This record gives sequence, structure tokens and C-alpha cells, in this order.
Amino acid sequence: MSKKISFACDYLEGAHPEILKKLMETNMVQTQGYGLDEFSESAKKKIRQACDAPEADIFFLVGGTQTNEIVIYSLLKSYQGVISAETGHINVHEAGAIEFGGHKILTIKQQYGKVNYKDIKQCLQYYWDDSNRDHMVMPGMVYISQPTEYGTLYSLQELEEISSVCKEYKIPLYVDGARLAYALACPENNVSLKDLARLCDVFYIGGTKCGALFGEAVVIPKHNFIPHFFTLIKQQGALLAKGRINAIQFDTLFTDDLYIKLGKIAIDAAQKIKEALKNKGYEFDVPSPTNQIFVILNQSQLDKIQEFVSLGFWENLDNGRKVIRIATSWATTEENVKKLIELL
Amino acid sequence: MSKKISFACDYLEGAHPEILKKLMETNMVQTQGYGLDEFSESAKKKIRQACDAPEADIFFLVGGTQTNEIVIYSLLKSYQGVISAETGHINVHEAGAIEFGGHKILTIKQQYGKVNYKDIKQCLQYYWDDSNRDHMVMPGMVYISQPTEYGTLYSLQELEEISSVCKEYKIPLYVDGARLAYALACPENNVSLKDLARLCDVFYIGGTKCGALFGEAVVIPKHNFIPHFFTLIKQQGALLAKGRINAIQFDTLFTDDLYIKLGKIAIDAAQKIKEALKNKGYEFDVPSPTNQIFVILNQSQLDKIQEFVSLGFWENLDNGRKVIRIATSWATTEENVKKLIELL
Amino acid sequence: MSKKISFACDYLEGAHPEILKKLMETNMVQTQGYGLDEFSESAKKKIRQACDAPEADIFFLVGGTQTNEIVIYSLLKSYQGVISAETGHINVHEAGAIEFGGHKILTIKQQYGKVNYKDIKQCLQYYWDDSNRDHMVMPGMVYISQPTEYGTLYSLQELEEISSVCKEYKIPLYVDGARLAYALACPENNVSLKDLARLCDVFYIGGTKCGALFGEAVVIPKHNFIPHFFTLIKQQGALLAKGRINAIQFDTLFTDDLYIKLGKIAIDAAQKIKEALKNKGYEFDVPSPTNQIFVILNQSQLDKIQEFVSLGFWENLDNGRKVIRIATSWATTEENVKKLIELL
Amino acid sequence: MSKKISFACDYLEGAHPEILKKLMETNMVQTQGYGLDEFSESAKKKIRQACDAPEADIFFLVGGTQTNEIVIYSLLKSYQGVISAETGHINVHEAGAIEFGGHKILTIKQQYGKVNYKDIKQCLQYYWDDSNRDHMVMPGMVYISQPTEYGTLYSLQELEEISSVCKEYKIPLYVDGARLAYALACPENNVSLKDLARLCDVFYIGGTKCGALFGEAVVIPKHNFIPHFFTLIKQQGALLAKGRINAIQFDTLFTDDLYIKLGKIAIDAAQKIKEALKNKGYEFDVPSPTNQIFVILNQSQLDKIQEFVSLGFWENLDNGRKVIRIATSWATTEENVKKLIELL
Repeated sequence: MSKKISFACDYLEGAHPEILKKLMETNMVQTQGYGLDEFSESAKKKIRQACDAPEADIFFLVGGTQTNEIVIYSLLKSYQGVISAETGHINVHEAGAIEFGGHKILTIKQQYGKVNYKDIKQCLQYYWDDSNRDHMVMPGMVYISQPTEYGTLYSLQELEEISSVCKEYKIPLYVDGARLAYALACPENNVSLKDLARLCDVFYIGGTKCGALFGEAVVIPKHNFIPHFFTLIKQQGALLAKGRINAIQFDTLFTDDLYIKLGKIAIDAAQKIKEALKNKGYEFDVPSPTNQIFVILNQSQLDKIQEFVSLGFWENLDNGRKVIRIATSWATTEENVKKLIELL
Repeated sequence: MSKKISFACDYLEGAHPEILKKLMETNMVQTQGYGLDEFSESAKKKIRQACDAPEADIFFLVGGTQTNEIVIYSLLKSYQGVISAETGHINVHEAGAIEFGGHKILTIKQQYGKVNYKDIKQCLQYYWDDSNRDHMVMPGMVYISQPTEYGTLYSLQELEEISSVCKEYKIPLYVDGARLAYALACPENNVSLKDLARLCDVFYIGGTKCGALFGEAVVIPKHNFIPHFFTLIKQQGALLAKGRINAIQFDTLFTDDLYIKLGKIAIDAAQKIKEALKNKGYEFDVPSPTNQIFVILNQSQLDKIQEFVSLGFWENLDNGRKVIRIATSWATTEENVKKLIELL
Repeated sequence: MSKKISFACDYLEGAHPEILKKLMETNMVQTQGYGLDEFSESAKKKIRQACDAPEADIFFLVGGTQTNEIVIYSLLKSYQGVISAETGHINVHEAGAIEFGGHKILTIKQQYGKVNYKDIKQCLQYYWDDSNRDHMVMPGMVYISQPTEYGTLYSLQELEEISSVCKEYKIPLYVDGARLAYALACPENNVSLKDLARLCDVFYIGGTKCGALFGEAVVIPKHNFIPHFFTLIKQQGALLAKGRINAIQFDTLFTDDLYIKLGKIAIDAAQKIKEALKNKGYEFDVPSPTNQIFVILNQSQLDKIQEFVSLGFWENLDNGRKVIRIATSWATTEENVKKLIELL
Repeated sequence: MSKKISFACDYLEGAHPEILKKLMETNMVQTQGYGLDEFSESAKKKIRQACDAPEADIFFLVGGTQTNEIVIYSLLKSYQGVISAETGHINVHEAGAIEFGGHKILTIKQQYGKVNYKDIKQCLQYYWDDSNRDHMVMPGMVYISQPTEYGTLYSLQELEEISSVCKEYKIPLYVDGARLAYALACPENNVSLKDLARLCDVFYIGGTKCGALFGEAVVIPKHNFIPHFFTLIKQQGALLAKGRINAIQFDTLFTDDLYIKLGKIAIDAAQKIKEALKNKGYEFDVPSPTNQIFVILNQSQLDKIQEFVSLGFWENLDNGRKVIRIATSWATTEENVKKLIELL
């Protein structure tokens, strides 16, 4: 196995040890399948509490693309599409999963991964003003990510504006929280789980990239907002037989604020690396306050670092310069941060 | 948590302790995502060896419905359907997953969950003889389960006959091995992994019901038989970010024959229970040699047992009699077997 | 071109001459596209009147498979399937169109193409009684044909019973009227257009097989029962640019009862042929009162007739006997009926 | 019915009288259904000849969206998408038909509706260079329109360049010829039917907008390039029972060059209108040489004209100016052209 250390992404290790411990302890308990077990009830209760959403329906799914695919499919009518940033994960890196479900992604422009409520409104109004709209795809929901694919954050005001446009046009707002721990633990962030539950129709709390072996918790604040969601999950092959495995992980993450604590580890590490980079005069491509750092390197800098550290290639700029992504996570060690800083 | 013991199904507990141990040991190793890691390579190597299929493509998926859905979707052309027993899992308990992918299930008759090569051939010939066949769904593959949903087994000769019909009509044969450990460990069984690799175009080795937390290993003996299967998996939301979690489990199961050993635990337990039932004069609904027992009880017998043991309801017969399923598994303890036998 | 006369099906000729005349007369009138024209308004008005359904939404589609596909897709939720006779056109001769739309056909037994309200009820109750129903396809609507694929008719009482079960389970009833003219003109029939509008949620009045060049009129008695049906039609590629072409045909068919008159021509011809067959001692496979006759012939009888007349092969029976379909239509001439009778 | 004359689109009238005449003459001839008739054979033969493609498979479909949907669905693998101009009909005005079939439209930039071979190549190379491409939609074919949605034309050189990129990347090129008559009859055009058959893998010859009641002829120059296309058509509900109705129309259009003659009527009318507009100082939004004229009007000009003539609204510009589409067609009369010119 590679001896290089890696900052290439935020799913390099297994799970937080506390999670494995709980899986060990509960291993031989017999429970019903498909999420109808006590662990699932317990985890749901804790998440409802954290979200201040006592009536929320909560479902545990396995991965992010799967979650996006099923939620979006379940929310849209056949003749509708989903509004998303051009850079939205669903539009770029999900191998056409949304279109496989039969729906068009209606892309709008973005800055550092974020969309603006005005552009959402324009997209909606454009459709409703068009006399040929019956020949067109109706925008039927909005998809955003918090943090975005570029590590940036929507402020509470921005989220309220977007939510408000959705309410005006009577379409649901869905937030992809694959890296939500890294938003919640970020000092710049002012959007809480309770805000998400208040302002979104559906969102998910990411586990895979935030300390779990795998798993995403879908939160639907309003009970029965998606009827027969269980069967929709089953039909798309996403129902885990041993739902408890997923639930035990989230139960652990939502005990004693572990989810936020894990987020904080990544944010602190990222903070240190960013400071070091600034001090050494490196430039950034994106002003991202969370666990992803987009730094500009030239080839020789990159070669030198990559001898010892794996990083994520993002994009080519002019003059041979490259945007490189450094991702920290719940598993990032102080030792590795030090090594990286020394190398820079 | 329930104090009743349960024989209701074969996914009641977590995973074999050896698997959790391996997940612990490897937990902080950094690896690439999506199955491009060392653990995946190792697990694949062991499975290829066990199947005597050195060129096989192997993919790890999360669950059975998901696996059936993606494999069948990937093998069929749009205008084709899949031949299956009326009782096939894909036809009954997958919430329309195959149809969601756009394909008709062409059901044929069965006995105790098994289909006959003659009925497969008739279904195929009926299509090819029909002058209106261009208006009909073309049978494009065969789906069977080993063991079947009723715990019965195809003999090697039966499998060879079915394989032979498939070859004659140039369509792939796919075997659902959700409970394959319980076939492989069964004394009545004469179909080995090597036979499956030789006679099928695709099959899967079940993990979820055979000792893993979750997971199924898809074996495609002929390299590149399904081009771009990776992307097809991704598109259907079934690609695990930390592929290693799946791989480590199968690596463990295929070390020192653990997979077969776990199967044997279930088979031995089932054997004991069946003997006790026979001795006490109970009748069976299905002559199943593997880990599922289908016994006929009347309501008062059932009530008495269910006070202490959870069982699976299967079907109502006449005169208030019921078919009840008793499932053993890798996790069944001698103690629980004794308790059950005492209660009978 | 073949000099043989043909009774092979009911779409052998073009359209009733009155229709071509109207197309000629209106040919150079300029109208809006997509059914937003005066001819469409006029045709809809006449159909609403004939059905005594003043608020009905009416849409003109091109063919029967297309109509079934779009209506069924529009009525079902993703997790639902459609109940149909095993012999239903959607199950046998539509090349998997319903499954292409993502839905399972839940087949029930039939006699001469007809299903029984008790079997429908059983299918529904079976689902709702099953504790595993969340893993299964929910029956979400009923599909029947009037007349059936075997030329038989539902009586008013039978239709009321079926409608009543649908209402009890709160699912829509859809009637495929590809050959509806031949039901409406049949002396045995006691189900009127008004009955259909009263008892069904959606039905269609067939044009292709009943005197039009092509076209089917979908009647949705309750306004807006299927929201955005226009866009659903467009999305499935079924929206005719010059909707008037379809409308002018139905406007003509629903002027001066032409639709019924055309049906009567076929019924009278079929009546004569059936009497002749009976007199000559032929046996029938199906007691069909409409325009399709299913007669049993041996090979030598068939060979003799087929020298001069094209017939439809239906099925092989034992002893080399065959079921042969003789179809009359709006275009069947007395001369051809005579010729056929002479040959028999 | 409206007494205003209309230049709003090119599907305002029925069909060229010669077509109706042929439908009349052949009306009572009995033929087989589904395109297996003599008229279909004859029409196909004439089209093969016109395209110099003796082995071409030819299918008659009903409308443009339907044709695009089925052809694109049939050409792409599940994990592939179609490259198209942002303004491509499939991307804007087909209500998500391509996505309904499961595929992403990979849009590239355009000018006046035309795409450039360099941008196609860049889109392809971008995918193949990306190390994450297995998580992305593979570009699997190219879609262009001739003439484009803006009435512009690809030159033979441009088409050869695009074809050449497609060959280089081994993906099919498909040309939407909804208005092909207006390209073929245009003096600026240097792309013949033979060129299309030589350079494309599939294209269609539009009937609906070029003189037929409805209908599009799909030309697949290489025999069996799309296996089982007949069944794919049936499965999508697009198979016309009386295929002859479609065939007779194309047979007529491809007799004595009627198709080109009808194109010429529209081109000549457009030419006169454009000259008049130029002389009167109007500006054009698009330099389109075919039957669509995109002229810039202010509101008062528009109001004045629309009192007597229906025109197509296209787009708002600044200062209250609007882009208005004037469409001529095979049915445009000299009288109406004169009236329009007088009004301008």
C-alpha cells in the first residue's frame, strides 16, 4: 500500500473509530431488516431533534449520487426538470443519473459553485412567460449543494432568498449536503441544520465524506411530502437489507455532536494549510472556507509535492499553471498537515 | 430490543466478526475510491481463483435488487425482456425494478422456484416462431436463482441444460446467488463456483445474506462482456465511494474458505431443525435442502411458537394451515436451534 | 398489387371517402398547429356531446399503442403497475411499450379476452393484504378493451362491476376502444359512449380501425384529471404538428352518426359470414359478437381458401387444426362477403 | 375561421393537392399494415435512388420530435449523451423527449443555430482527456439540423468537417431534416441528398413542414446499422398501422422532383420578402437563406402588420424591438406575399 500521504479527497479512510466500535458492540443483535429496527428509530429521533423537525421523515441511503437520483426522481413530474448550477454534481459527475431517471437538468450560471436567487427566478419566469412553454421542460425544483462542489457556502440570507423564490413558484428546494459536516463546523457558516429543515423541502446529511463508512441521511421535514418513498427507494435498488448498518453510523454521528466535531477537524486542518499557503505567497482559485482548498501551482511545484503527497488535479490554467485541490477530512492528522506544510 | 429469538430471515445480524476485525485493522489506511484500491484488487484475485476464471471482471455492489437491476439492464437491448420463473425475486419482490429499467419480465412456470430448460426453450421458440414477433418483446436473457427463493437447488445437469439452451439461442444466462453460500455448503449441491463461471455469463456471489454487512460480488467470467459496466453502475447510483469497504468484506470471506464455512453453519442448523420437524410429524411445503425451511403449521402451533420465536409467514393454505419459513444463517447459534426445537 | 381479397385485419384500406373529401375541402385553410385550431374545437365538441360529457378533455393521438403507452404512463405513479388480462394488447403486442415507460403489467386471468371484477378485486386485495407490499408493485389502474382483442364485449353490468371495484380501491379505469365502433354498432352491446364516459376515468375512441386514415380520440371525462397531458404527449413524440388532420377525421366520423354507421357495415358483414359458417358446420373458437370471427379450420380447408382470400392466422390447435381470424370492417364490401361465403 | 393571412409557421395548411389526389386514388386498395405494403416499397425505392444509397434502410415516422427521440435513443448506449447546439430543437422544444429516453444532451455553443466541428471535437476530447470520465456522460453521437432552427445552412465543407470528426471518434452523425426541402431548393445550398447519405449515419427527410399532411422519412444509408429498428419504433408507440398513408405521401413527393419544387416555392417567396424588407430598410437578426426570415420590428410596426397577418414572435431585443419570424412554405401564395410586402 502506498506510503505517500494523500490529500486527494475526503473519502480516503474507513470510518471514525467510534462508529466501528458501535458496529462491533451491536453486531449480534437480531433486528428486522429494511430500516424497521430500533437503531433506525434511535438515529432518526436524534436527527429530528438536531433539525428541530419533529415530524420529519428520515431515510438512510448509501451514497450521494444514489440519493440525488432518487430524491430528484421522486420530486419531479415526468414533464419537469431540475434547476442546477452548471457545476452541480448532478450535472457533471453523476454519469447522467438524473437523465437516466428521465429528467432534464436546467443549468444556470454560477460563481464558485453557487447560484443566485435572481438567476433561478429568471429561469422560472422565462419558462412561464414563454407562449411555447407546453413544448418545453417545466422547471420543477431547485438543486443546490451546501457546501458547494467548490467548497463555498450559501449564507443564511442567500438560502432564504432561494427558498423564497421556490415558494413563490411553488417548487421544492433540495439541498445536497454530501459534505454538510464541513459547512456546519465552519466559522463562516451561519446556516444551521434547523435552518435547512425550515427552508428546504428535502436535504441530505452526508455520511460518506464526513466520518461514516458510507451513508447519507435524507431529511424530509414535512411528513409524507414524498408518498411511498420507501418503495421508490426499493425500486431503484437502493434499499439496504440491513438498514441498521446505516442507522448505527448516523446514531453515532449524532451522539455528543460527533458530526460537528469531525467537521471541525477538517476545517481546522484546512485553515492551517490555507494560512501556510498564503504566507508562502500561493494564489487560490476559489475563496473556499470549508475543507477543500483550490490552490494554483505550476508544474515544478506540483511535481515536487506529488513525490510525497497525493493531491487532486482540478483544472489547467494558462502558462502551465494548474488548479490543484487539497481536501482535508475528519481523518486528517496533524502530522500529515505538518508534512504537507513543510513540503509547500 | 426484542428478547425473542428470530428465525425470520437470514439478514438479522451484522457481519461475521472476522469481517469487522479486518475493517478495524485497515480503517485508517488511505486508498483511492470507487474500487480502484489494493483491497479490491486482492478480493477480486481471490474470487477469480475460487471461480477458476482468471480473466473475469468482478464488481462489488451493495444489494441484491440493485445487482439484478443493473446486470439485467446492462445485458438487455431495449426491445428485449428477461425470462424468469413466476416466483423469481425480480418478478415479485423488487418493486418493479426491472420494469423501471424499461424491460418486461417474461415469466414461465416453475416448481419449487425452479424452472426447466424445456420451458425456457418453449418460451424462446414461441417468440421466434411467431410471425408477429416484431410487435412483441424478444426474450433476451435468462434469470435464475441458486439457491432459488424456495431454497431449492439446480443440479449441475439442470444448469448445463439451461446453459445449453441459452447458448443455442445466443442469449446470456444470469444467476442470482443472493444465498450462494448456502448452496455451496449444501451436501446435495453439485454446482461449484467453477461450474457457475463456466456455464453462466454473469452471476453474483451474495454477501448480504451470507456473512457480510452488505455486498454482492458480480462475476463476469469473460472480460469486457459488459462494456462500461463501471459507468452503468455509477449512472444507477450504485457505485460505492469507499469501494474498499465492500472489497475487504469479500476478501475476508474468500480467505481460508470462510464463505463456505459460514454456509455450513446455516446448513447444519437447518438440517437439525428439519430432522426435529420430521420426527415430530410436521409436514413441509417445499423439499428445500438449503437454509430455508418451509413448514406447515396451524394457527395454534404458530401462536405457541411465536410467543418466543419470530418466524416468516409465507402463505395461507386451506383449513387455516399456513406455510411458515424458518431461515437459518451464518449467525445461527446452536443455542437458538435447541430452543426452537424444544418449542416445536 | 395483390388481387386476392383480404379479411386479414381491419386496417387494410385508407379512410372512409367522406373523410378524404373533408380533408380536400379544408386543405388550404390556414390554422394553428398542435390541436389549437377550429377543427379540433369542433370535433371535441361533437365527441363531448356524443359522450354526454360536457367538461371532458379530449386529445387526438395517432395510434393505439401510442395511446395506451401515454395514457397508462400518465395515470400511474412510478411504483405502480397496471392490471390487465393476460391477453391484453398492452401485454402481448405492444413490444414492451408499457415497460419502456417503467411500469409492470400485472396480469390476471381472462376468458375470451375478458376479465372479471372478482379477479381484479383479488389482485388488489392480495397486494393490500401483503405485509411485504412495500417491496412489491402496487396495482394502480385497470386496463380493459371494449371490444376485447377477441371481439367479445363487456356488458353494462360487467363494466359497472369493474368500475365499482376501481372506485372502491380508488384507482382509475381505462378502456381501450381501438375497435369501439364495432362494439357500439353491435346488437348485443348495451354499453354506450355515455356509459363509458360515466364509468371510466379515461377511454379512447378508435379511429385507425374504424374508418379513419389513422387516429384515436382520448376522452378524459373529468376536466384536468391528467394535468399537463399536452406536454406528456409532446414529450413522448406523439403530438401531431397539424392536429387538424386528426380532428377533421373525427369531426367527420361524429357527424350524422357516421362512426356508428361504419361500425354497422362491419357487424352486418360479420353476421352474414358467421351464419354461413354455422350453416356449413364450422366450429368457432370464440363466441365473438363483433367484427372479428375466430373459426377453426384444418389445413386443407385453409389452403383452399387462402388461394383467393387472405386471412389472419391466430393459433394452432391439436390435430393440425388452426384458429383463423376473419376480420370485417367499415370497408368490407357485400361483394367480398359473397365471395368469401362461396369459398367456405 | 381567421381571415388574417398567416406567415407564422410552415405547417399551416394540409398537404400538397397531388398528395391528397394519390390518397384518393389508392384509398380502397387493400394492403398489409405496418409498412409492409407495395406503396412503402415504391417510396423507399425512390428515396434510395434520390440519395444514391441503394442499401439504405428507410422508415416512415409521423413527426419530428418522435423521429429525433427514437433515432437518438436507438443510437446511444445508456451511458452516452448526444452533442447538440444549445439551440437544437431537441434541447429546446421537445419537452424533454431525449431525457425521457434516458439521455443527456451535451450542448455546445452555436452561431445562428450552427455548430462548428472544432467545438464538437473539443467536447469529445475534453471527455476523453478527463481522468474522471467514467463518472461522466460519454458523448456518443452528434445531432445537427439542416437547415437549422434559424434557417441557416451547413455548407458541404462544414458537413464534411463534422462528419470527419465523428468518424475520428467513431460516433454516428445524425441530421434533422425537418425542413430539408427548403435547404435542397435553396440556391446557397451545396449539400445534396447524396452528400447527406454519404456523410451521415442517419438523417431524416421532413414531410410535415414540406408538403405532406405529416411524416418524416428516416434514411439509414448502411443497411442494418440500427438492428431491430422496427421494434424500437413499435415500442415507442410510433408505428403507423396503415404505413401506406405515410408512404404514399413520400412516394408522391419523390415523383417528378415534387419535393424540390415545393421547396422552391417557399424559397422564392422568402427571397421576395427579404428583398422587400431590405429595400425598406428593415434589419435582420439572422442571415438565413432558407424559408425562415428573422426580421427586427418595433412594437408599432408589429401592431400594424399583425392586424392583417399572423407572424411568429421569436425574441425580445432592447428598446422594445423584437425579432419576428416570417415563415414561407410550399403553400405560400404569390397573393399573400404581395399583401405582406404591401403591409411592411
